This record gives sequence, C-alpha cells and structure tokens, in this order.
Amino acid sequence: MTLQSRQAAEALREQVVEAHLALQGRTPLVQCITNVVSANYMANVLLAAGASPAMVDNTQEAALFAGVADALLINLGTPTDAQVEAMRLAAEAAQAAGKPWVLDPIGAGGLPWRGNVALELLRFRPTAIRGNPSEIKGLSGLGEGGRGVDSSDEPASAVPAAQTLLRHSPVVCASGAVDHLVGSHEGQPVLVRVFGGSPLQPRVTANGCALGALVAAYQAVAEPLVAAIAAHASFAIAGSKAAMNHTAPGSFAIGFIDELYRLDEATMRARTKIEVSALDTL
Amino acid sequence: MTLQSRQAAEALREQVVEAHLALQGRTPLVQCITNVVSANYMANVLLAAGASPAMVDNTQEAALFAGVADALLINLGTPTDAQVEAMRLAAEAAQAAGKPWVLDPIGAGGLPWRGNVALELLRFRPTAIRGNPSEIKGLSGLGEGGRGVDSSDEPASAVPAAQTLLRHSPVVCASGAVDHLVGSHEGQPVLVRVFGGSPLQPRVTANGCALGALVAAYQAVAEPLVAAIAAHASFAIAGSKAAMNHTAPGSFAIGFIDELYRLDEATMRARTKIEVSALDTL
Amino acid sequence: MTLQSRQAAEALREQVVEAHLALQGRTPLVQCITNVVSANYMANVLLAAGASPAMVDNTQEAALFAGVADALLINLGTPTDAQVEAMRLAAEAAQAAGKPWVLDPIGAGGLPWRGNVALELLRFRPTAIRGNPSEIKGLSGLGEGGRGVDSSDEPASAVPAAQTLLRHSPVVCASGAVDHLVGSHEGQPVLVRVFGGSPLQPRVTANGCALGALVAAYQAVAEPLVAAIAAHASFAIAGSKAAMNHTAPGSFAIGFIDELYRLDEATMRARTKIEVSALDTL
Repeated sequence: MTLQSRQAAEALREQVVEAHLALQGRTPLVQCITNVVSANYMANVLLAAGASPAMVDNTQEAALFAGVADALLINLGTPTDAQVEAMRLAAEAAQAAGKPWVLDPIGAGGLPWRGNVALELLRFRPTAIRGNPSEIKGLSGLGEGGRGVDSSDEPASAVPAAQTLLRHSPVVCASGAVDHLVGSHEGQPVLVRVFGGSPLQPRVTANGCALGALVAAYQAVAEPLVAAIAAHASFAIAGSKAAMNHTAPGSFAIGFIDELYRLDEATMRARTKIEVSALDTL
Repeated sequence: MTLQSRQAAEALREQVVEAHLALQGRTPLVQCITNVVSANYMANVLLAAGASPAMVDNTQEAALFAGVADALLINLGTPTDAQVEAMRLAAEAAQAAGKPWVLDPIGAGGLPWRGNVALELLRFRPTAIRGNPSEIKGLSGLGEGGRGVDSSDEPASAVPAAQTLLRHSPVVCASGAVDHLVGSHEGQPVLVRVFGGSPLQPRVTANGCALGALVAAYQAVAEPLVAAIAAHASFAIAGSKAAMNHTAPGSFAIGFIDELYRLDEATMRARTKIEVSALDTL
Repeated sequence: MTLQSRQAAEALREQVVEAHLALQGRTPLVQCITNVVSANYMANVLLAAGASPAMVDNTQEAALFAGVADALLINLGTPTDAQVEAMRLAAEAAQAAGKPWVLDPIGAGGLPWRGNVALELLRFRPTAIRGNPSEIKGLSGLGEGGRGVDSSDEPASAVPAAQTLLRHSPVVCASGAVDHLVGSHEGQPVLVRVFGGSPLQPRVTANGCALGALVAAYQAVAEPLVAAIAAHASFAIAGSKAAMNHTAPGSFAIGFIDELYRLDEATMRARTKIEVSALDTL
C-alpha cells in the first residue's frame, strides 16, 4: 500500500466507526422486498445490528412505505410477479423521495427474466449494488452467469464489471472471501477490500442477502461507500468472531447473530480490516 | 390491588394452568395465514408449546381448512392479494363453524390499505385481537400508527383503544414489556397485566407474530380471556427463563423455543405473574 | 432377516456411503419449489449436507432452471396459484431433460385441491415420492388423509399405499419414527426400513420437507432407492447424534444442522441402520 492508500484506509475506518454509532443511535427503518428464504434471517440480522426491518412488498403499499422508510432493499432471490411490480414502485418512490436503496441482483447473471428486471431497476439509480461476483458480472453484461446463488467466482475477477456498473450506482460490492467494493473516496475512484469472515458464512443460507439488507440500513446513516464498507466489515468481524466458538453452520449462524448484536465501537475500530487502492477510470 | 383483584388474579392463574394442560393434551391444529417473516418461527413456537401448525393460506383451501382446524390465526404482516382473499374466506368459515380465530393487525395503524383489510375482517368477530400498542391504537382509529412493526408505544397507552375494540372481540391484547389485556372476567370488564419476559424478545423478529398464533392455539382449549393470558404468560415465562442463560438475540431465540417446550404445570403456576383491575365501561 | 436380506442391506449400505461421498464431491444444484415455512430451513439443510439450493419457483424461470439444476424438489406445503403453475412447468422440463425430481405431497390426503395437483404432477413421473404415512395413503387414494402436516400414522401402515404408487415412481418413502421405503433392488421389489432419529425431529417444523429436498439432492448422484436411503439415513444419524446433546427442539434443530454438516464416510458406514425385506408384487 502507498502512504496515500494507508491514509485513505485509516480515514474510511474512522467513518465506518461513526456509521456504526449512527446506526445504533437512529435505528433506521429498512423496507425489504426480498426472497422467501431470506426474510426471517434478514430481519433478525437487521434487528441484531441495530436497525428495524419491515418486509412491505405488496403493490398497494410498497411505494407509500418507501417514502416512510429510511432505506430500501430490493433482492431478486425469489421474485413473484407482484413483488416485481412492487420493486418498481418502491424503487421509483425511493428515488423520488431521495431515500437510499440497494439492489441485490440474485441470479442476475444466469436467468434472463430477472436479469431484465434488474436492468430495469437500474434506471432508478440504486445507492448501492451488492452481489456475489458472478451476479455483478452478470448484471454488467460481462459474465456468463452463476449457478443459482452460489458464489462461483473470485471477487477480484468482478472488479472490472463492478467498475462498469458505477454508471448506475455510486458503490458496487462483489462480496466473497475478501469483499471487493468499488466506489469513490474524496472524488477518486477506489477499490476497497474488506478482510475477515469465515468459510462457514456461505454455508448459511441468505447470509449474502442479509448483508445486502445491512448495506441498505447503513445507507440511511452514511455516504454510499462508507455505508457499504461498514456493512461488510460488520459481517466480516461477526463472522470471524463466531467462527472462534463454532465449527458447524447451524450453531455458527446463531453465534453470528449474537456477535453482530455485540459489536461495539472498540471492536469496530480494532477489527475493521480494509485496504484501499486507486482505480483507473475506464 | 384490592382483595377482589387478588382473588380474580388467583382464579385466572388457576384457569391458565388448566388451559396449559388442556393444550398439551389436545394438541390443537392451528391454521395460520401469516407473513413470510414469521412462518417458520411461528410454526416452531406452536410445536414447542404443544400445538400443531398448518399454514394453509391459499384461496382454494382456506375456508375448507378453517372448518377442519381447531383455531385460526390471521396476521397482516406481508399480505398478498391472494392471502387477503384467503383471510376473508377463512375468517368467514371460522365464524360460521364456531371456531375461534385471532386477528393480528400488523401495521394496521400506519398503512391504510391493510388497515381497511383489518377493519373488514372485524365483521367476522375475532375471538381475540392481538397487536403492539400502536397497532391496537391504529385499528381502533385512535392512534397515529406505528413505524412498521415496531412497538413504539407503551402498552398502557393503548388500553382505551383496546376497550373500544371490545365491540368487535371479547379480548384485546396490547403486547409489550408489560402486556395489557382487556376482556371480561365473571361478566365484568377487566384489565389484566402480564409481567415477565425479556428486553431481548423484541430483538427476535416475529416474536409478537408467534405470540398471536399461540393466543389462537389457546382459544381452542379455553375461554377468550384465559386463553389470551395463557399465551402471554407462556411467552413471559419462557422469555424470562431464556434470558437467564442467553444475553444476545440469536441464542436467546433458540433458548426461548426450548423453554416454551419445557414449560410444565408447576412452572406455569409458580411463574404466571398477573394483575387484574376493574375497568370502567365506556 | 434372511441371509439374502442381510446381503442386500450390506450392499445398499455401501452404495449409500458412496452416494454420500458423491454428494460432497459434486455439490448438486437443487431447485426447490416449496412452502414458505420450510424455505430457509430446507436451504440450510441442503447446504449443511453438501448440496446447493436454489428456490426458483416463478412461472417465468421454473422450466428453464429445471433444465440447469441437477435435481428438483416439488413440495405442496403452501402452494400459490403461480407456484402450482411453476411446479407443472418445472416437472415437465425436468422429465424432458432427464433430470431427477421428487414429489413431496404435503397434505395430499386431506385437501382435495392440492391432492389433484399432486395427481397431475405424477404424470411427469417423479424419481421419488416422499411424504408422511397419511400423505402417502392420501395420494394413493387408499387413505383418509391426515391432519395438516402431522404424521398421524405409523409408516408401516402406508406400505401397501406406497407399493401402489410404484406405478408412478421408482421409489416411495413413508417417513416416520422408522422410515419405510419401497423400491427396487437388483430388479426385485423391496421394503427398506431406516432406523434412528429422535422424537424431537417432528417437533422441528419442516424437518420432513427438508428431508424431501435431501432425497432430491441424492437423486443427482445415485440411483433412486439408494438416494432415498442415503437421505433418510443422513437424517436418522444426524437426529440421533443431535439428540445426545440436546433435549428441546430449538437447540436440537441447530444441533441437527451441525451434525448433518459433520457427517463423514466413517459415520455413514458405521451408523446407517437399515433392514431390507422382499415385497410381494401386487
């Protein structure tokens, strides 16, 4: 790392700590339009981290609620026709109200129908995009698509695709063993890598989905890149700590929720491990 | 407390213990039309407490099943159009068959569309209404509505609203740190407060939803007020006991299910903490 | 047991061990069209056991994905109209692509509408049928139907019904305290009984549903009867082991996931307890 990179990492870490405090203080209300597999776990993750979840995903209320909520998460995991319509209405309403919203384009690479839904939603300019590497590549049109929701790719390989998607969103996250986030720091395009976590995390279903929701929660209290780092760092720290006491995915998932709940300022400061690099503009 | 209040509390506690035994003995089949966040947790809570859950919520089968089941729970958490139609059909069929049913008007205060759904359902005369204070106020038309499914209000403040709703249902429950239940004991309107529980309970998503389902289960084996107290006391006791061993919401939720499963007659008798007060009629 | 039966059991156990290794090696992608109660738990069970879940259940993608996935699970727990259509499309596509698929006819006995859906799906020839005894009887037209998803019957009583269903599928499983599987071994019709498990398993909602999904996962790596035995044996072993450390259903469910994850070759070989008997043809 250059000196400049180390200074950027240090500055971002302090902003992450502030974002963590702000989340605890404000308890943002996060509307989640999400898949059936993730709903319960996502809500528990948001509650543990200090946010307040509300899964309002019907066409009658989605837009109204997007104006009331502090942030919106749209996850394409198991979309019904009604949910897709609710996604459009909510994303439009969030944009109109200046509320942050996050797109998690589950399966966007491999499944053309939902890929189109994801592309359509991009015109409402998400505050962040989060996915696994194959989904980020799929959404950008560069990739071959993934295998369901598996993360079949190294996050580093998705960085060019993520950069392409910066046209649509100020921060794009390819989550994985080492999370790769691209965005802007002090007007410069940067890649931020977040270290930590446990190999058990992908063995817990909807872990990535819940991370997307936490990215949304943080968007309510911090600027896009800081918010995305804060969410990924929280998951990395809670995952690392849970893995100290648990060696199998059932008890690990419970320990993970507990560790998210216990995250405090000192732990965020001491354990947020990030590296920052300048990115060439395309 | 007056002597009369103490005697009423003592009598109700014994009826609660009997209801608990009756639930274990009969394993009532509880039809749940509920939200996607709560479905799994609610089913596990019912199984742990001794009831048998069945989430039959489609329009083809909802009415038929309401005639077969021992009780019905309708929860407005994440209603789809089909679910709303199934709710109407099931509530009507339950009323026609003389089966008890419980309305949990999630978000009724803040969201007009589902507020109207809740009001429509009231004409099928629920055996009990259970919600957080803001929802009870919202449903009664007295409140300003809540913030998603958060309990943003003290239960005591919802007692006048709950009394208003007695026109529609024999027992109305505003759940919270101290649950406030209004109903009728020996022909007299009463307020019953149920003590216990843990501050971790609202950190577990769908805890209130699952409580609503247990209120429904108990309606199959006891009269409305006793049933509502039995469900709330079970949650308060299991919550208090789980909090002795768990200090974070992930492991607390697991311990809570375990403690519900372990609740026995002696524990119900020793730990059911209620206070009864006479209520002026409106 | 006859000598022939003992030899058959020994041969099948070795094939089960091979199937277990194959599952770990190939991580089959399992498409699940399932009920809302089971989705999260089912996905976690598949991940713990070494498979990869994808809950693609919309009409736009169900058929396409059935051609991509390694196996398909169709579970009738809480069918929506759209899911029912997706089930037909996916089952047809799976059959056309020569992909294995499993039918779990939840509630087929007691509820005529979904019973008809199940019967319609049979024409796409499932690779396996799995249910509780009352559902197997209900589907075969012999039974009176069950009480929701409860297993109200002894598996042994469902063997004649299971045999009748062999017209539609090469293996039919009536799961319970002792699982009863009927299928074909070396060209002969056989009954295989799988021993183990814990009385806490039916206290965990969707345990049977998740078992159906694991039957589907194994169909991707072994022939029908061996696959069905491997899934049931995995559940029986994990259940028995989890019950050594946990005495209540909340913690038992977590321990069960952990034990599934820890199952290794030696444990599968040592603890798979099956008995094989010849069946008269009808």
